[in-house]
Amino acid sequence: MKYFQCDYVEGCHPKILQKLIESNLEQTPGYGTDKYSEAARKKIQEACGNPEAEVHFLVGGTQTNLTVIASILRPWQGVLSAETGHINCHETGAIEAAGHKVLALPSTDGTITGEQVHRYCQEHFESEIKEHTVQPGMVYISHPTENGTLYTKAQLAELKKACEEYHLPLFIDGARLGYGLTSPGNGLTLKDIAQLCDIFYIGGTKCGAMFGEAVVIPNSGLVKDFRYMIKQRGGMLAKGRLLGIQFDTLFTDRLYFEICEKAVKQALALREAFTEKGIPLYGESRTNQQFIILNGEQMKKLDEKYAYEVWGPSGDGRTIVRFCTSWATRDEDVESLIRDIHEL
Amino acid sequence: MKYFQCDYVEGCHPKILQKLIESNLEQTPGYGTDKYSEAARKKIQEACGNPEAEVHFLVGGTQTNLTVIASILRPWQGVLSAETGHINCHETGAIEAAGHKVLALPSTDGTITGEQVHRYCQEHFESEIKEHTVQPGMVYISHPTENGTLYTKAQLAELKKACEEYHLPLFIDGARLGYGLTSPGNGLTLKDIAQLCDIFYIGGTKCGAMFGEAVVIPNSGLVKDFRYMIKQRGGMLAKGRLLGIQFDTLFTDRLYFEICEKAVKQALALREAFTEKGIPLYGESRTNQQFIILNGEQMKKLDEKYAYEVWGPSGDGRTIVRFCTSWATRDEDVESLIRDIHEL
Amino acid sequence: MKYFQCDYVEGCHPKILQKLIESNLEQTPGYGTDKYSEAARKKIQEACGNPEAEVHFLVGGTQTNLTVIASILRPWQGVLSAETGHINCHETGAIEAAGHKVLALPSTDGTITGEQVHRYCQEHFESEIKEHTVQPGMVYISHPTENGTLYTKAQLAELKKACEEYHLPLFIDGARLGYGLTSPGNGLTLKDIAQLCDIFYIGGTKCGAMFGEAVVIPNSGLVKDFRYMIKQRGGMLAKGRLLGIQFDTLFTDRLYFEICEKAVKQALALREAFTEKGIPLYGESRTNQQFIILNGEQMKKLDEKYAYEVWGPSGDGRTIVRFCTSWATRDEDVESLIRDIHEL
Amino acid sequence: MKYFQCDYVEGCHPKILQKLIESNLEQTPGYGTDKYSEAARKKIQEACGNPEAEVHFLVGGTQTNLTVIASILRPWQGVLSAETGHINCHETGAIEAAGHKVLALPSTDGTITGEQVHRYCQEHFESEIKEHTVQPGMVYISHPTENGTLYTKAQLAELKKACEEYHLPLFIDGARLGYGLTSPGNGLTLKDIAQLCDIFYIGGTKCGAMFGEAVVIPNSGLVKDFRYMIKQRGGMLAKGRLLGIQFDTLFTDRLYFEICEKAVKQALALREAFTEKGIPLYGESRTNQQFIILNGEQMKKLDEKYAYEVWGPSGDGRTIVRFCTSWATRDEDVESLIRDIHEL
Repeated sequence: MKYFQCDYVEGCHPKILQKLIESNLEQTPGYGTDKYSEAARKKIQEACGNPEAEVHFLVGGTQTNLTVIASILRPWQGVLSAETGHINCHETGAIEAAGHKVLALPSTDGTITGEQVHRYCQEHFESEIKEHTVQPGMVYISHPTENGTLYTKAQLAELKKACEEYHLPLFIDGARLGYGLTSPGNGLTLKDIAQLCDIFYIGGTKCGAMFGEAVVIPNSGLVKDFRYMIKQRGGMLAKGRLLGIQFDTLFTDRLYFEICEKAVKQALALREAFTEKGIPLYGESRTNQQFIILNGEQMKKLDEKYAYEVWGPSGDGRTIVRFCTSWATRDEDVESLIRDIHEL
Repeated sequence: MKYFQCDYVEGCHPKILQKLIESNLEQTPGYGTDKYSEAARKKIQEACGNPEAEVHFLVGGTQTNLTVIASILRPWQGVLSAETGHINCHETGAIEAAGHKVLALPSTDGTITGEQVHRYCQEHFESEIKEHTVQPGMVYISHPTENGTLYTKAQLAELKKACEEYHLPLFIDGARLGYGLTSPGNGLTLKDIAQLCDIFYIGGTKCGAMFGEAVVIPNSGLVKDFRYMIKQRGGMLAKGRLLGIQFDTLFTDRLYFEICEKAVKQALALREAFTEKGIPLYGESRTNQQFIILNGEQMKKLDEKYAYEVWGPSGDGRTIVRFCTSWATRDEDVESLIRDIHEL
Repeated sequence: MKYFQCDYVEGCHPKILQKLIESNLEQTPGYGTDKYSEAARKKIQEACGNPEAEVHFLVGGTQTNLTVIASILRPWQGVLSAETGHINCHETGAIEAAGHKVLALPSTDGTITGEQVHRYCQEHFESEIKEHTVQPGMVYISHPTENGTLYTKAQLAELKKACEEYHLPLFIDGARLGYGLTSPGNGLTLKDIAQLCDIFYIGGTKCGAMFGEAVVIPNSGLVKDFRYMIKQRGGMLAKGRLLGIQFDTLFTDRLYFEICEKAVKQALALREAFTEKGIPLYGESRTNQQFIILNGEQMKKLDEKYAYEVWGPSGDGRTIVRFCTSWATRDEDVESLIRDIHEL
Repeated sequence: MKYFQCDYVEGCHPKILQKLIESNLEQTPGYGTDKYSEAARKKIQEACGNPEAEVHFLVGGTQTNLTVIASILRPWQGVLSAETGHINCHETGAIEAAGHKVLALPSTDGTITGEQVHRYCQEHFESEIKEHTVQPGMVYISHPTENGTLYTKAQLAELKKACEEYHLPLFIDGARLGYGLTSPGNGLTLKDIAQLCDIFYIGGTKCGAMFGEAVVIPNSGLVKDFRYMIKQRGGMLAKGRLLGIQFDTLFTDRLYFEICEKAVKQALALREAFTEKGIPLYGESRTNQQFIILNGEQMKKLDEKYAYEVWGPSGDGRTIVRFCTSWATRDEDVESLIRDIHEL
């Protein structure tokens, strides 16, 4: 069976493993104060074009989202998000468990607009009974989105403008950031990201690391005492160097970008194969996730050799499914799948 | 100016005031352990046809909702509610602040159905990734709803059945219960309510009391240690007898029902006047809240003498407004308003 | 039976009742936006010598403590308090339920010192592992304390200085403030209080009102959006005027001070009687609560006619008990008790 | 510099690293549903003598403690713990952030007794105002304790008995369990642990793994839906197999026990050296942590070559310090330190 159902079915990039082997018996202090974490922070600051940015390492995505959001909001505030946002759908209510409502905005493709944020806030702050409703306190987006779509630079700038109008920090969930930044459809650099939002994270788990997410706070005044919060919510790894080593490796010689770019190319090859075959796409992803609409017969055929994820019913009897590639996907598996698509 | 904008613009029913005056210098123990609270509990148990029911008194509606819900749910569970439910819209995220997501179900008239609950739960519990989403843990409805609509006995029984299938306690917010039970459109007795749900409250604040809500738990095993929870969430009144006295009075000689019935009749007279005049209603309320669609000219005229609540735009340039009557509304004010409706 | 066990066994001062009767059928807008609340706010601002102070009305003490504290602290912060503090002992973990640790400081008489605060903070902020421990984020004291003791002006100023050194807001729980301000042992005016702390409340429940606590925020920038928080935690009374009327009355013609002063005098008379009789006091209260050490025989005698509160064992076989007077305590009951003390 | 300051300064045991290398490019499903996690669960069940025990893997200790405790307690309950317990001192208020008070019991050596639990609960449940205080809802101990001490089988059985009397689940934090089970002072087997408590975890981070803690629930009914809770609190590792591989390796051929036993022997050799030299111990640890009382001169000497942890002042001008060994400590470093102790 060849796995295309998600982007975390393997371990980590061999260069990371090599570094873990080399450093294994070395002794370092804990909790992210080691030299590897320090080196990784430096490289990330450089890649972001901001030597003053704060960089923190956490273990996983849900943990990072809840820690960031709970460290910013006041108790009576909520976070604006696309209704399809990961925090709204797939984190078992982690944000609510931290005390905050996710204020869901309608979205068909996974993105939200500055106009939506503006309208929501305007209506809230002009309401005579605003104190009876949750105050919008920050904005959460993901890039790429859960649907694999991307924000353009103009869209992100418009969002940022709306956020500034209402003093809302803008937070970007970059669980798959590498696959977004290396998409041919992308118009944003890492430096743009670091300039156009207030806090974001660079996903490691899905982009070559064993695990780990690097939170970047361009304006280091935003979250005073963030390390207390990481510790309290269980995200402070005792052997913090494990995170440092991984991000140090990923941000050496552009490894992070290279390995993600390869995955995106593979995904686009799959996409082309489906399109050539006349099999419809669901949405417009040009990243490592491809959403396809299959009929029962096609699924049965593919099931023999491939694992993919069932996303939901298409509404006309067919099924939306997801194929993912990753830094680890082998070209031979992609080629095999393309051949089998043509046979469908 | 005559106020019709809500049902809590006056103090309390004179009979309650009389009792407060008479008992004022009497000495009683605190926290609801006094004889008045005890008497009130007995009368409510009797009215519910269940001498074993647990009865607790709290001060206000938001407090009651959050205390009840947080005492029932486990941390990973959420509460199913109509998207228009008070807990979802008008409590500043009190449920989320207690750690729980409100799982909003679509509703056009304020009610939800057993079928909706069944489908939501079925989908959840059959999902392979259910642990990544919030588990439905209870169901919240209001009767009458925020739109003034009512559940029929069959609808409530169907909801109860769906709840039982998935072991979800059913909670009824009865902030305006009196106006529901005395509506000509109502098919439910207080005893039915006590049989068809697991926990509910009898609203005092909007139905004749100065303040106060009486929580009834028909099956007293449902929430062990509920008094701890009332205290912790700030709902345990030191001079608990104030609540006891109010509910004791309201449940003596059916006062609660009489004064609510009067208000409903007044509301229906207003409704008839609008209908006769050809002014459209918004929705189908037969309780003390009437939702009307007015144009700008009509509003301007009525604004001269009457206060009512703006509910929102109707979508066609007109405005949905709400007129409320209460136990305290004077017949002469209703008559005056009816005359002025006819003049519009 | 004559009740001396606490200061909330009666209803409210007759002047308040009178005002409630007079205004009962008047119509006012809700949630504290009415003219009575406005008038009460003005009078309290004047009494505090600060026309810019923010004033908010809540229903009860636990609710007020949790709402104030949770509105100030960030998630990783705790509140410094005497280990005997009400928030640490008698609120069912309400502060923890809001997410915050109570950082208990040793205290034998209910007070804490600036030196204690300074030392705690110094040790915390100098620690190399400070992020593994709760950050002190504010200081809570009560005046009078739970033991009936009082802070001197110098002690309070010293506390304030330590708070300022570490940027900790100082919060005074004034559940019994009236009994403190009118004690012969008191050296603080209401204006001093308003200058020497960042947020405090003037207790109503135990000092003449049916219920209600008035939160005063001298520097109105301290808690932005406090009304959202009141609503979210269930403390925003629909018929807010009930609170306004009570505090308006209490702060008219110094009623609040007069009625509390009377109670303190009665308590001191009891104290004198016990002392004359050679029965030892527990601690040094010169407010309306008197803590006395009784032996079994004495208790048995007094039990025949008086209710008082058992505070705990004295350690030598005797029992510490509490006698409270209040605005409502009758002179004849005090005289009767004094006679019976002399008979012991 | 040779590090003795804690037991997490290296990576992981070479056998684990080897397994990670071998499996790195293998594809497995996520979130702990892979074959390695399954195999590890089986081996742990076997080692616990309970094939029905539930086993879950989390990443770190604070995360595990907060997830376990918050999944068991109801909102009005707290957790009994030694005042020196990790949850009370070194987790930045993680338990309080989850809504629960840590009910601290006095302890001089890190342990608490069944008698203490019994007395606390008896006093609570007999109190007339129990609802105004936090209800004890479970008991937390660590084995070994933070002081390196151990419970005897009799002590643990007595604790368990007190817990059963009040229906309190007993939770053992086993962050250093391996070092406890292999101490010459230990009288408990892993099977005993699994029989004498309701939930515990086997620490990996400090005992040979890169990271990871294995929660064992002997009676699998205790925490329904624990996986939801792990996900919600951010502890569900996407590549769950990383945890499975580590525990599978540790529980193959008793590796876990062997490597911990070695560390304990090294620690006892250090202890013997200090004792022989007449340098006093602090407390009675016979596990991998040794607490020693040094004077300034001794510290200065040792500082030249060794890192150890300063624990606090001894009260007489000297300093309590901690030396830790671990699975990774090299015999040559221990020998060097012993020589230098003799030179002091």
